Amino acid sequence: MSLDSIRERWWKIVFESDTPAGKAFDVLLLVAIVLSVLTVFLESIVRLEIKYGAYFHTLEWIFTALFTIEYLLRLWLARKPLRYATSFFGIVDLLAVLPTYISLILPGTHYLLTIRVLRVIRVFRVFKLVDHLKESRIILEALRASRMKITVFLTAVLLLVVFIGSLLYVVEAGSNSGFDSIPRSMYWAIVTLTTVGYGDISPATPLGQFLAAVVMVLGYAIIAVPTGIVSVAMSQATHQATTTRVCTHCMAEDHRDSAEFCYHCGTRLPDRGN
Amino acid sequence: MSLDSIRERWWKIVFESDTPAGKAFDVLLLVAIVLSVLTVFLESIVRLEIKYGAYFHTLEWIFTALFTIEYLLRLWLARKPLRYATSFFGIVDLLAVLPTYISLILPGTHYLLTIRVLRVIRVFRVFKLVDHLKESRIILEALRASRMKITVFLTAVLLLVVFIGSLLYVVEAGSNSGFDSIPRSMYWAIVTLTTVGYGDISPATPLGQFLAAVVMVLGYAIIAVPTGIVSVAMSQATHQATTTRVCTHCMAEDHRDSAEFCYHCGTRLPDRGN
Amino acid sequence: MSLDSIRERWWKIVFESDTPAGKAFDVLLLVAIVLSVLTVFLESIVRLEIKYGAYFHTLEWIFTALFTIEYLLRLWLARKPLRYATSFFGIVDLLAVLPTYISLILPGTHYLLTIRVLRVIRVFRVFKLVDHLKESRIILEALRASRMKITVFLTAVLLLVVFIGSLLYVVEAGSNSGFDSIPRSMYWAIVTLTTVGYGDISPATPLGQFLAAVVMVLGYAIIAVPTGIVSVAMSQATHQATTTRVCTHCMAEDHRDSAEFCYHCGTRLPDRGN
Amino acid sequence: MSLDSIRERWWKIVFESDTPAGKAFDVLLLVAIVLSVLTVFLESIVRLEIKYGAYFHTLEWIFTALFTIEYLLRLWLARKPLRYATSFFGIVDLLAVLPTYISLILPGTHYLLTIRVLRVIRVFRVFKLVDHLKESRIILEALRASRMKITVFLTAVLLLVVFIGSLLYVVEAGSNSGFDSIPRSMYWAIVTLTTVGYGDISPATPLGQFLAAVVMVLGYAIIAVPTGIVSVAMSQATHQATTTRVCTHCMAEDHRDSAEFCYHCGTRLPDRGN
Repeated sequence: MSLDSIRERWWKIVFESDTPAGKAFDVLLLVAIVLSVLTVFLESIVRLEIKYGAYFHTLEWIFTALFTIEYLLRLWLARKPLRYATSFFGIVDLLAVLPTYISLILPGTHYLLTIRVLRVIRVFRVFKLVDHLKESRIILEALRASRMKITVFLTAVLLLVVFIGSLLYVVEAGSNSGFDSIPRSMYWAIVTLTTVGYGDISPATPLGQFLAAVVMVLGYAIIAVPTGIVSVAMSQATHQATTTRVCTHCMAEDHRDSAEFCYHCGTRLPDRGN
Repeated sequence: MSLDSIRERWWKIVFESDTPAGKAFDVLLLVAIVLSVLTVFLESIVRLEIKYGAYFHTLEWIFTALFTIEYLLRLWLARKPLRYATSFFGIVDLLAVLPTYISLILPGTHYLLTIRVLRVIRVFRVFKLVDHLKESRIILEALRASRMKITVFLTAVLLLVVFIGSLLYVVEAGSNSGFDSIPRSMYWAIVTLTTVGYGDISPATPLGQFLAAVVMVLGYAIIAVPTGIVSVAMSQATHQATTTRVCTHCMAEDHRDSAEFCYHCGTRLPDRGN
Repeated sequence: MSLDSIRERWWKIVFESDTPAGKAFDVLLLVAIVLSVLTVFLESIVRLEIKYGAYFHTLEWIFTALFTIEYLLRLWLARKPLRYATSFFGIVDLLAVLPTYISLILPGTHYLLTIRVLRVIRVFRVFKLVDHLKESRIILEALRASRMKITVFLTAVLLLVVFIGSLLYVVEAGSNSGFDSIPRSMYWAIVTLTTVGYGDISPATPLGQFLAAVVMVLGYAIIAVPTGIVSVAMSQATHQATTTRVCTHCMAEDHRDSAEFCYHCGTRLPDRGN
Repeated sequence: MSLDSIRERWWKIVFESDTPAGKAFDVLLLVAIVLSVLTVFLESIVRLEIKYGAYFHTLEWIFTALFTIEYLLRLWLARKPLRYATSFFGIVDLLAVLPTYISLILPGTHYLLTIRVLRVIRVFRVFKLVDHLKESRIILEALRASRMKITVFLTAVLLLVVFIGSLLYVVEAGSNSGFDSIPRSMYWAIVTLTTVGYGDISPATPLGQFLAAVVMVLGYAIIAVPTGIVSVAMSQATHQATTTRVCTHCMAEDHRDSAEFCYHCGTRLPDRGN
């Protein structure tokens, strides 16, 4: 068996997922990614880090070793290694292992290690299958179609936030209720307009509370806008995804997928194309 | 009157609800379920438990006795007692009485008793009637049709939460504002993205507040996605809401309200009754 | 001028609003209602009550006198005084003046006086005009059409709240975070599911926070259901309210109100009926 | 080169944006506006004001000088200077520079300076281009079409707020939970109905919490109404989105994308360009 046919076989396993071996590789990779991200999660809990820190570090090195082997394998298999190394996923694959090695040289860079969370992006590598699903296509299509409208809407919201923020800053000045700068007031305006409402900052003066009430009702009303935009786009994307058979006799539309005869005039419907 | 005809009559009363006696049984059962659940609610309030604990325990045993009789009745009436005992509702019926008996043997298992709240599921037994209503059919149909899209959407939200959580954990580190581990940060991210906004954790640094504002606007925008998905599905489910007419020629069912010819064999459909 | 014609003229002024005098009466009544409700609002602010209490009481008696005169006038004008007195608005009109008189006899009934706020209902009397507006008709039509679906949805939400409330009560028991009874836990479940999120009660244990996150995402997803229901109903109600002219030649629909020719084949459209 | 042709050339630069110079002017103006607003933001942060106050004041005077030159330029270029000075943007342009000059005469008017934030409105001057975008036309069209319905809806919400506010004021009286006047209770009602939920005021009595839960579920359900209104209007506005084709015979505009014949005179429309 030649080296080339071995490369060819491994290529099918590592980069594709049509063969059983390729599917198994993808599933194993998915499990490893999820477990390594969970390890980062648990490591960030101080109480657990103190108790089980040693285990976490061992696990971390095991995952790093696995991902390093995988990275070198991909580099070797790729027809154009440089293009792979500089591609989006090539960089993500490198970022998945680099932080652990850097921590050997610079021991203090604790927060740099959270870059390891970026490994989650690698999940998308496995989800390339999902990408082809009709469902995600329709959602993405709807979002793409409403891209411009959402941008216009968010710009209008931003300008509104600047006004409301400045207004409340002036109104609540001196009441010691947290509106101590315009940026903070704008933060409050966003918290309120989006109906999140933490309560870490809330108006204390009657006028401030009145204006806040107006802002809330406004936020309540304008949430209808993005919803309307996406609903319409979703409706169109869904409609374009359904069959569009028309009765040859009476021109009735909206036939079911399973229909063989027109529900309006009873004429036999044309065969489906696919 | 033979035992068989008595069983037949009781079967009609206990398992069906077409006869007046069957309806009366269902209504009584509903009342008993609701009252027994309310008793559990009141019992959980310490102040009331101290005062009226004895009454609650008496009531509890009365309901347990009633439900035990009902359970034995169902076991006796069921054509295949074992199949009933292992069915979903069979287990729920058993869980409705078991905790009270266990409390005799293991007196300390206070929290085990909250399993009694599961009795609420038994309400669905009575609602089997409602199940046939056109309204709940349309809602369920819409949810079923958008199942896949909602899953894709929630997966995307989950990945977003992982990123935002990790990011805020790094940004807010050392500011003592509650972001002390990645899982807690992710909890905060969900609280914010869904616009719940408790305020038990909220960013204290300017950069953290800026990122929080971005997350809120994001959450405000993406709530449009599930709404759009369900609206479209609801629209289609409503549009395709079907009558109970059956084709006289090929027995095909599920014709639309507006259909005049059978979609399966092209025969003219009978006129609508109303 | 006979008494009957005076009654007739006053009837037109007080009960109808087609004449200029009738309109003026309605506007004056609206102003009086709004001002009297505002007085109740201001009276409830302790600081203002102490300072301007005397003025408020004077105003209160002026409004009571006005509404009493109006009530007697209506009693006198009504063709069937008893039917008016026992009608919905008759009772509301009486409730608008009674509390002030009762306060003479029972001086301590401070909170009884807030019944005066019910005067706001009287605003609807003036809004009977608005009632005929196409807009409110469409909204009410949509709500009426989705009545059953909303009920089914709210029942499902209620059962969900019972489960979540009981679950969190067990999980958060002993963590002193406010989940000290099932009803309080259910209150928290509603606060969270509806994305209100006060933060007066919020889970403290990791498991509790995890479950809370699940509840939030659930609430985020199911808000799409009522929105979808009402959107569809609103769409149908709006569609039924628009003109339904059809081109006599090519059967194209959806012509604009102002269109005179078919946009599809150029044939002159039929005249509008109204 | 005559003064008139210089004025003509500058007119094209300052008031229009079709020439490269005009575009460059618009971009520079946009940058200056954004930077001057950011300066106001930073100035409002006490900590930064203390440190870098001098820099901020220098920047402020530079921006004021630039905007003054621009204002005088516009006054000189405008064919009718008085009409420009009294137009909406004329006043906004003046308000953008006036506060800084007034601060020389009245040094204490700190809050007057926040009027400078109004400069943000000037951004719209540059966005006059955006105004022609199909996307913002559709959104505005949808909002205009649902204007009346939203008003009816908000009126109903307002009346609901009055009732709920008064009710909770009575129920929570004496529980020291913040419901100390009807206006404050109404503020709470809005905070809750809109699902903002600060938590600065939240009911403490069981009855109050029960009523609050009802209000939340209500708010959860009625948010569907504006969403439904705008979705339907957005759907219609999108459907009726018009091309810029003009009928060659009667000059009628606003034909639909799908139209083949003029809706006004029935003449065949020219083919679409793309």
